[in-house]
Amino acid sequence: MSRVNVQELTDKVRRAFLGVGVSEEIADTMAEVLVDTEMKGVFTHGIIRVPNYVRCIREGGIKPAADLDILSETPTMAHVSGHGGLGIPIAKAAMKIAIKKAKECGIGIVSVKASHHLGAVGYYANMAAEEGLIGMTMSNGNPMLAPTGSCEKKLGNNPFAYATPAGKYGTVLYDIAISATSDMKIIDMNKKGLTLPEGWLINSKGEPTTNPADYLAGGVLIPFGGYKGYGLALMVELLTACLGCSGMTHEVAAWNRTPKEDGGNVGHFLMAIDPKAMTGEDGFAKRAEELIDQMKASKLANGATEILYPGEKEKIKKAECLRTGYVDVNDDSLAALDALLKE
Amino acid sequence: MSRVNVQELTDKVRRAFLGVGVSEEIADTMAEVLVDTEMKGVFTHGIIRVPNYVRCIREGGIKPAADLDILSETPTMAHVSGHGGLGIPIAKAAMKIAIKKAKECGIGIVSVKASHHLGAVGYYANMAAEEGLIGMTMSNGNPMLAPTGSCEKKLGNNPFAYATPAGKYGTVLYDIAISATSDMKIIDMNKKGLTLPEGWLINSKGEPTTNPADYLAGGVLIPFGGYKGYGLALMVELLTACLGCSGMTHEVAAWNRTPKEDGGNVGHFLMAIDPKAMTGEDGFAKRAEELIDQMKASKLANGATEILYPGEKEKIKKAECLRTGYVDVNDDSLAALDALLKE
Repeated sequence: MSRVNVQELTDKVRRAFLGVGVSEEIADTMAEVLVDTEMKGVFTHGIIRVPNYVRCIREGGIKPAADLDILSETPTMAHVSGHGGLGIPIAKAAMKIAIKKAKECGIGIVSVKASHHLGAVGYYANMAAEEGLIGMTMSNGNPMLAPTGSCEKKLGNNPFAYATPAGKYGTVLYDIAISATSDMKIIDMNKKGLTLPEGWLINSKGEPTTNPADYLAGGVLIPFGGYKGYGLALMVELLTACLGCSGMTHEVAAWNRTPKEDGGNVGHFLMAIDPKAMTGEDGFAKRAEELIDQMKASKLANGATEILYPGEKEKIKKAECLRTGYVDVNDDSLAALDALLKE
Repeated sequence: MSRVNVQELTDKVRRAFLGVGVSEEIADTMAEVLVDTEMKGVFTHGIIRVPNYVRCIREGGIKPAADLDILSETPTMAHVSGHGGLGIPIAKAAMKIAIKKAKECGIGIVSVKASHHLGAVGYYANMAAEEGLIGMTMSNGNPMLAPTGSCEKKLGNNPFAYATPAGKYGTVLYDIAISATSDMKIIDMNKKGLTLPEGWLINSKGEPTTNPADYLAGGVLIPFGGYKGYGLALMVELLTACLGCSGMTHEVAAWNRTPKEDGGNVGHFLMAIDPKAMTGEDGFAKRAEELIDQMKASKLANGATEILYPGEKEKIKKAECLRTGYVDVNDDSLAALDALLKE
C-alpha cells in the first residue's frame, strides 16, 4: 500500500482516459467514481480497473465517444443504449434520468443495454439517496456462478445495491455481489493453505468442497445462501437482460477482456423512488435514522465492538481520506497506472 | 399427512372465517390464498395459520370488517392503511392497485401500514406476473433475527418475493424469508440429535454454533449469508416501516399472538412494473423463457437430477393437486381446523 494524494490520483486517472480519446467530461466522471471507490476501500473496483478499461478502448472494444441514446421513453421509464461506451459514465447519466423521473412521477426506472462494466453498482444507488430518494441499482456480468444444481459457470456475479437517506447517518448504502466469496479470496486462501468455510465453493463435479485448491482444478463459485442467492442472481438477469434487452449470460463480456462489439453487452437496471408522497418531506429519513439507531443499540455479540449499517465502514474510510487528503492505494495498481501514463 | 379434497378444504377455511364475522369476499380470499399455499407445499404458511388468524379476530386483535383506506395517492403510488384487518385480503387489494397503476403508468407502488401477517408474500408478486408484469413484494415482521454483530432479536424475518412472466414456464416466483433457516427446522434437528451447518445459528452470547440445543438456551437466528442477508432484512424494513410508516421492529406483533391494535402494525411493500414500454408486448416473457432454458441446460452437478427455477417445485406440487383434486395436509393442521369448525 502507498499513501497517495487524492487530487493527484484523481488527475492521473483523468489523464489516463484523456490519453485514449475520451471527452473531458467522461474522464472527469471516470476519475470521480473510481477514486470515490478507492477511498471507500473497495480496491477491487477502484484504481485496479483503469488499465483494463483503457486497454478495451485502445483495442476498439469500448467506444470512447459513445453517447447515451434513448430508445424508448415514458414519464416513468426509459430504455437506453450505451452504444458500447464506458459503463461508468453511462450508468451515471442513466441514474440522473431515473432521479429526474422519480422527482416528477414518484418513481423512475431506466434500463440500459449495450454498456460495459459500471464499477461499483452502489455508487449510482447512492446518487438517488443523496437527493433524498430511495435508489436501487443492478448490473449483469459475464458468467461466473453455477445455478443451484449445476457445476457450470452460467450466471454473472450480478451486483445488487440499494441506498436510502438516513437522517444523521447520511445515507445507507448496501452493495453486494452474489457470490459467497470472490475468486481472489479463494486463490489467496489457497496460497496460505487455509480451509474454506462451507458454502463457498463446489469442485468441478459440483460437489461442495472446503479445499481452495479445488478452484484451480475447475471448481466454480456459488451464490451466497444457496438457492436464495441463485434467485437473486436470476432477478438481476431478469431486470437487465430480459427487461433491458442487454446481453444475457454468456453474451456478456468480462470487464477485463476486450469485447468485440457493444462494449460487452452489459445491462444495468437503475430505479429511484421519491418517498415524499407517502412520508412527507423528511419523514422517510427520520424513520430510517430511527431504524439505524435501533440496530446500533442492539446487544453486542461476544467479540463484536459495534453494529454497523450497510455502507458505514466504507463511509468512515472515505471521510478519513477527505480529511487527510490522502488515500491508500495498492502498489501494483498504482504502478500499473503510472506505467500507463508513461506510454 | 392426510389427502384432502381441495374443494372441501377450501370450504372449511371459508367457513372458519365466516364464523368469526368476516365478509363472504374476505372469507373467499383467505381460503383461496391459504389453500393455494398449501397446494404449493408451503405448509408453514398455509392451513396451519387458520386457528391463530381466527383467534386474533375473536380476541379483537384483528378487525374482521376492516376496509382498505387510501391515505395518499398519486398516479404511480398509494399509501394505504389496512385499519387492523386481516393481512391477506389487504395485501391482495393493495397489489390490485399497484397492478392498475403499473398498467397505466408503467410502474405502481403501494405501501401498506396497519396490516397483519399476509401469508406467503410471493402470492401477491405472482398476481402481477400472471398479468404480464414484474412483481416485487415484501413485508416486515416481529423481531426474530440478530443484526450482524449483535445477539439480540431485532429484525423481522422480513420476507421478500419477486415474480415475472416467463413464456412457456408460466411465471418465475421467488419467495424467501431472510433467516438462514427456520426455528422449526432447528428444533426438529435438535430432537434428532443432528448438527447444524455453519452460519445458521448463534448462541445467546452471539457466538457461532452448530449445536441446535443452543437455540433453546437463548440462541438467535441469523440472516442467510451473514451481512449480505442482514442488509436485505434492513431493506425490507426500510421499504415498509420507513416508507409505509408501519410499525418498526418491536412495534410489529407476531402473527400468532393477538395484537393490541392496528392488527399487528405490519407493513407491506408491493410493486408492479409493466415491461411493455421497454420490451414490446411479449418481449420480456420470451427473454425470460430463454434465460430459464439456459439455466435448465446447464451441466448438472454430481447427484443433481434437474436445475429448477424459483417457484418451479411449488408449481409442480400445485399442478398435481389441481389434476387430482386432492392436497396433502399436515394432520395437526387439519385436526385444528376441524376443531375450530366444531366450536
